Amino acid sequence: MPTQIDFSSYIQRYENELLKNVIPFWEEHGIDKEYGGYHDSLDRDGSLWDSDKWMWMQWRKVYMWATLYQSPYKKDRYLDYAKQGFEFLLSHGKSKDGNYYFGLNRRGEAIIAPHSIYSEAFAVMGAAALYKATNEEKYKIEANSAMAKYISRMDNPKGLWDKSMPARPSRLSHGVYMILANLGTVVKDCLASSDYDDKVAEAVDMVVKHFWSSKHKVLFENLNPDLSVDLESGDGRHINPGHGLESSWFILQYAERNKRPDLIPQVGTIIKGLLDFGWDKKYGGIYYFMDVLNKPKLELEWDMKLWWVHNEALVATIYAYRLTKDPEFLDWFQKLDAWSFEHFRDPQYGEWYGYLNRRGEPTHLLKGSKWKCFFHLPRALMVCIDQMKKLEI
Amino acid sequence: MPTQIDFSSYIQRYENELLKNVIPFWEEHGIDKEYGGYHDSLDRDGSLWDSDKWMWMQWRKVYMWATLYQSPYKKDRYLDYAKQGFEFLLSHGKSKDGNYYFGLNRRGEAIIAPHSIYSEAFAVMGAAALYKATNEEKYKIEANSAMAKYISRMDNPKGLWDKSMPARPSRLSHGVYMILANLGTVVKDCLASSDYDDKVAEAVDMVVKHFWSSKHKVLFENLNPDLSVDLESGDGRHINPGHGLESSWFILQYAERNKRPDLIPQVGTIIKGLLDFGWDKKYGGIYYFMDVLNKPKLELEWDMKLWWVHNEALVATIYAYRLTKDPEFLDWFQKLDAWSFEHFRDPQYGEWYGYLNRRGEPTHLLKGSKWKCFFHLPRALMVCIDQMKKLEI
Repeated sequence: MPTQIDFSSYIQRYENELLKNVIPFWEEHGIDKEYGGYHDSLDRDGSLWDSDKWMWMQWRKVYMWATLYQSPYKKDRYLDYAKQGFEFLLSHGKSKDGNYYFGLNRRGEAIIAPHSIYSEAFAVMGAAALYKATNEEKYKIEANSAMAKYISRMDNPKGLWDKSMPARPSRLSHGVYMILANLGTVVKDCLASSDYDDKVAEAVDMVVKHFWSSKHKVLFENLNPDLSVDLESGDGRHINPGHGLESSWFILQYAERNKRPDLIPQVGTIIKGLLDFGWDKKYGGIYYFMDVLNKPKLELEWDMKLWWVHNEALVATIYAYRLTKDPEFLDWFQKLDAWSFEHFRDPQYGEWYGYLNRRGEPTHLLKGSKWKCFFHLPRALMVCIDQMKKLEI
Repeated sequence: MPTQIDFSSYIQRYENELLKNVIPFWEEHGIDKEYGGYHDSLDRDGSLWDSDKWMWMQWRKVYMWATLYQSPYKKDRYLDYAKQGFEFLLSHGKSKDGNYYFGLNRRGEAIIAPHSIYSEAFAVMGAAALYKATNEEKYKIEANSAMAKYISRMDNPKGLWDKSMPARPSRLSHGVYMILANLGTVVKDCLASSDYDDKVAEAVDMVVKHFWSSKHKVLFENLNPDLSVDLESGDGRHINPGHGLESSWFILQYAERNKRPDLIPQVGTIIKGLLDFGWDKKYGGIYYFMDVLNKPKLELEWDMKLWWVHNEALVATIYAYRLTKDPEFLDWFQKLDAWSFEHFRDPQYGEWYGYLNRRGEPTHLLKGSKWKCFFHLPRALMVCIDQMKKLEI
């Protein structure tokens, strides 16, 4: 295992990827100059294959353009891209009771009801990043309002649209806590707000102490309300390694910024556990969904390899390496880097493929959809570059 | 292409499959002798991997056991299996407003709200088959009540649980008409009822005249309310070849029983169109989901090969061959038969695998789940045997 490497060639390759292969694709094809907001469903070459607009994707793009505007790769027009998205979403995106719809048509008329709490989460991120970029009050107001909505919906994320009947076992969902751990960092960084510190600290604790099982060495996605694991049901045994790895680096970031060094070795253990469990020993890459006891998965796509899972794994491993200097993380980072760049890149049209079969062959050539956008990949490239630059010092 | 073949070895193989490989698996592992109803989620060897009970699966099993009881393979205990399922579902399965829940826990307490119109459809089939088997009035009452519910929900199948907002384009859904075409045959056969003849005739016409596009040579799954096709959106372009093939033999059956020979050549064209479009020329087998213009699919599992798709294709081709003697159908049947028996069978534990990757390798070893049960395979084997026996005469 390597102990230290020269990161300069990595940094160069990651910057090249971000600046020449990813940003230009979304700049050229991803802005709806006619109606405002962004084009979501882009084919391999950037052509539009469906014109509906999905709230998670739209707000994530506001966040990404506003974040790039404040990065070493700043261009003035990136702020314009973010602002026009914000205006489109603020004037079209909200129901009367102030929740964000899940989907709009191209013109901005609501097509899908506001059933997802994560629409609010990504609105917090987009609006907060714009506030940091501009210091304009309206962005702060929107970020705080979306944050309050998110917190208020945490206990019943699906609300009206929950099909559960009383006898269905309640679940605590890892995703809700994981996202709050990230929102905590964003809100503190962009709004300098301490209002949510206690809630965020609780969320971090939930992930590290309860969703992580030191017995099973995996991070569970669903817990019983008493914090125990349900090994008798498929959803109780459900593991999403990419989700766990994303959660891990959110917590490393939290630990560093909030002077909680005690969290770092715990998260290191989580990352190693998830990679050991989730890595496909035969074909390489990380599985999408797994069962902790290797019982059947209901999801047909369980063995596929998804771009975002690998993006988040890259960040988790390089972040953990910087904080711990444990060579096992560097080894994983190099392995993930080699596999990801070999299998996901599209050298011809830019951006990465999103979906590979177990063997690592693309099953979909699309670059954007209801579920894939300008977010995980550019964020991962930026955070990895930042971590590697810090390692170079 | 063959013009006629000796079907006796096929019949023998299909009977062997039904009687030695499929029925024993479900008889041994699929009856919940403790709480009533059936076990749905069965692993490769028949062990239970989740104990929840899903309405589509439960009612389909009532139908299948009641149908087998009236088949050449009759055993008295098959009727008991069907009856105990009916009793369990009647006492636990219904909400106050008379709709069937989507899911129950093992004890029969509701866990998922009655959001699916197809729960009613399969209740019609199960109860009607039991009425035919027993002549007991209670089964007829239940079948008629579920049928009335189905018809009343057709215009708004998702009801309360529809997340659509007004600006979302309305769709006519092929599935709703296709299932009615089959229910028409079941109700007429089991209840000797003519009450739904007009509705069923309309449904058949909808499929043949409108969901089928002679221009695109495929059967669409979603139409605009004015019966036009929406080629601008992913759901407008969505093709489900297996669904179309299942629909096709429902209509052949309808045509034969209702003296509508005019439908037969039309359906023959549909079957050929769907097989030409849906067959994977590289690896064999029929794709799960496709886009009529070969644009990206949102569904990650689009290129997988599913057992039920191939079951329904076998029935459609042998049925069409018997009615038309067109050797192209026999050729397709033989090709489908060879591919299906080679790839889906599990000679070790019985039953078929449900899910193969594009290459035809199993990705899941489960035999039963929320979506896979004792239905498509035994029904297909029985209908194919029946068709081949008629061809032998």
